Amino acid sequence: MTKFDPNAWWQRDDLCYRDNQLSFAGRDVQQLAHQFGTPSFVYSASRLEANLKRIRQALDAAGLAGRSSIFYAMKANRFAPLLQFFKQTGLCGIDACSPNEVRHALSCGFSPSEISFTATSLSKKDFSELSQYKGMFMDCDSLHAIRSWGELNRNSEIGIRINPGVGIGRACNDKLHYSGCTTTKFGIYREQFEQALELAAEYGLTVRKIHFHTGCGYLNAELDQLDHVIGECMKFVDAAADVRRVNIGGGLGVAHLADDQALDFDRWSAVLNKHFAQRDLHIEVEPGDYICKDAGLLLLGKTFVEQKRDTLFVGVDAGFNIAPEPAYYGLPFQPVPLFIDDLPLSMMTVVGNINEALDVWYENALLPELDKHDYLALINAGAYSSSMASNHCMRGEFSEFLLL
Amino acid sequence: MTKFDPNAWWQRDDLCYRDNQLSFAGRDVQQLAHQFGTPSFVYSASRLEANLKRIRQALDAAGLAGRSSIFYAMKANRFAPLLQFFKQTGLCGIDACSPNEVRHALSCGFSPSEISFTATSLSKKDFSELSQYKGMFMDCDSLHAIRSWGELNRNSEIGIRINPGVGIGRACNDKLHYSGCTTTKFGIYREQFEQALELAAEYGLTVRKIHFHTGCGYLNAELDQLDHVIGECMKFVDAAADVRRVNIGGGLGVAHLADDQALDFDRWSAVLNKHFAQRDLHIEVEPGDYICKDAGLLLLGKTFVEQKRDTLFVGVDAGFNIAPEPAYYGLPFQPVPLFIDDLPLSMMTVVGNINEALDVWYENALLPELDKHDYLALINAGAYSSSMASNHCMRGEFSEFLLL
Repeated sequence: MTKFDPNAWWQRDDLCYRDNQLSFAGRDVQQLAHQFGTPSFVYSASRLEANLKRIRQALDAAGLAGRSSIFYAMKANRFAPLLQFFKQTGLCGIDACSPNEVRHALSCGFSPSEISFTATSLSKKDFSELSQYKGMFMDCDSLHAIRSWGELNRNSEIGIRINPGVGIGRACNDKLHYSGCTTTKFGIYREQFEQALELAAEYGLTVRKIHFHTGCGYLNAELDQLDHVIGECMKFVDAAADVRRVNIGGGLGVAHLADDQALDFDRWSAVLNKHFAQRDLHIEVEPGDYICKDAGLLLLGKTFVEQKRDTLFVGVDAGFNIAPEPAYYGLPFQPVPLFIDDLPLSMMTVVGNINEALDVWYENALLPELDKHDYLALINAGAYSSSMASNHCMRGEFSEFLLL
Repeated sequence: MTKFDPNAWWQRDDLCYRDNQLSFAGRDVQQLAHQFGTPSFVYSASRLEANLKRIRQALDAAGLAGRSSIFYAMKANRFAPLLQFFKQTGLCGIDACSPNEVRHALSCGFSPSEISFTATSLSKKDFSELSQYKGMFMDCDSLHAIRSWGELNRNSEIGIRINPGVGIGRACNDKLHYSGCTTTKFGIYREQFEQALELAAEYGLTVRKIHFHTGCGYLNAELDQLDHVIGECMKFVDAAADVRRVNIGGGLGVAHLADDQALDFDRWSAVLNKHFAQRDLHIEVEPGDYICKDAGLLLLGKTFVEQKRDTLFVGVDAGFNIAPEPAYYGLPFQPVPLFIDDLPLSMMTVVGNINEALDVWYENALLPELDKHDYLALINAGAYSSSMASNHCMRGEFSEFLLL
């Protein structure tokens, strides 16, 4: 008889079973679920801070202390208390991608000079509004953007988002490829880079930064690709005399499955060290997923357990519309029980309350008999969940809590 | 030199070029875009009504006049003026799938007795709230649902959502399979049907309706499958003595591509006639997509046109988050110019303003030079668009207008 592994792969100091009760951020999760109701997202401030500090330390270890910055990609999670907490830590600025995101970041305490803006397909109205935020740094991702920004902000400094034509991606996931074989809308390719620099010069714009985004969710297996991509991108840096900053984007990944190894920051640091230690450049990174994902749990109420043919289904009181990664992106959120006992395990498929075939949270999870369980928690639900939530089927209600 | 085909496949009386200007619901679309701004969804009340009437006529032609009902699946589009308009037509009731949908339908003028409720993974709280809507018809989709509903509504009438274990689906689209080879969370399978009937009897519930959902977006090629699925489902009907109603779900499809043929309602009627003409049953259908999809345009503002490597990109001022079908479900919304002239055509890829690789509206659309164009319209955007919209990247703003 298989029993629940009290040392399941996803456990760590601040997310583990203590006396058989699931503990998160020092709290008993069962009590949180009772208190907050479901569905609820709970975020651990200490884990968020630890994730930020881990990146900061890795940058320092790469020889970039005092000349590197973290910009949190707020599209991952814009819950206001979380943004305010980030501001208080002093560990990061904001990577924003829309005028409303800038406004929201300002409302949470950030100043324009702490915001790096990188977006695509901006409208005239967008450019006009963004021009008002003096001190905010704009990365232009097309010739059109250089022209539009230049007209409104002559003789200023800009970044250029480039596209190296090579990218990083978990091989299985087409939907997360930003650059690579297929031509994407993002950035300026090598063939047009000279033209971009000339265009910037026409408007008196000084190109101070090269920005690139390389992929999503990379782990150790992809670090050689990261090395290669940065190498390709440095060709752009070398071709632009005034560049003083390089933004290597986000994309740092989190373990989703039992077989995933956590990103090895020694190796990550080594890649950065190799490319940047000997260069007079300020290095920026803009993770979102990495900072928030494993700092959030989604607490769900169990609605039913029922065998249908070969499948034992566990129903819960929310669906993919409040956290679309599992259904749309194929990135599973492991379901975990809020307490463990000696009951035998079965393979179960956790499903939501939306009338759509893709509303499946997790297939074939090994879970104990759930008769006595009122709740389940999904791990890794801290990023690209609530920020992408919809009110599909009018099932869009949920709560969010930052656990300090 | 290829020029724009003034008889493009998607045109019809109420959506076509008149004097080279795109006309929709009798309005000049360019003027609508100027007046309403972008992004905006515009819906044609006359097209909505025509779609409803087409289904009504097909039901009548199937020999089901006076013993058939249409329930509009409101999850397709819950824009209040649209629901109120449906109520005024008197042509349909509502298919709801959450307590909030029921509440919203009531607020738009429908009474509980005009609502058919079919959902999955309902919570205790859901059952409790739903029990208050006397006259609303509940379809139970699991043993758990029969038990939960029975406890609150002893000696009442219910429907049972069954799963025939066979389904319809466009072969290419895994994400829209509701029933078929894989076991899904939906409905009660044949093996458990007897148990379901016994359980209902325990609570004094009379099983008056068999409900099934067979697939999504079926067209003529799938009508033989529909025939087969209904045949399988009738085995359930024959096994339940008290059944007087059969709900065959929705799933009627709309042409998305130039090669798609519109659903042939003579054939659809013939399928229904074959199964139901000689039976003393009331037949229900619950389309959503079919009623709204081709009655809606999404008006977008052009932000830029720029060649990147082998691709000519057209940027627009909204992304996949306000209409997820193209990006997530692979169902393209053809982009069309708001006026046509003699300018040559090029292959263009229409992209949105979200920083994600999957934010592509349409690849390789043949469009004329767009220098003079401020807007594009996407057709078939009337269903599963605004109702599934999110505020991802805080780009969730849009307007909706019902054109009477």
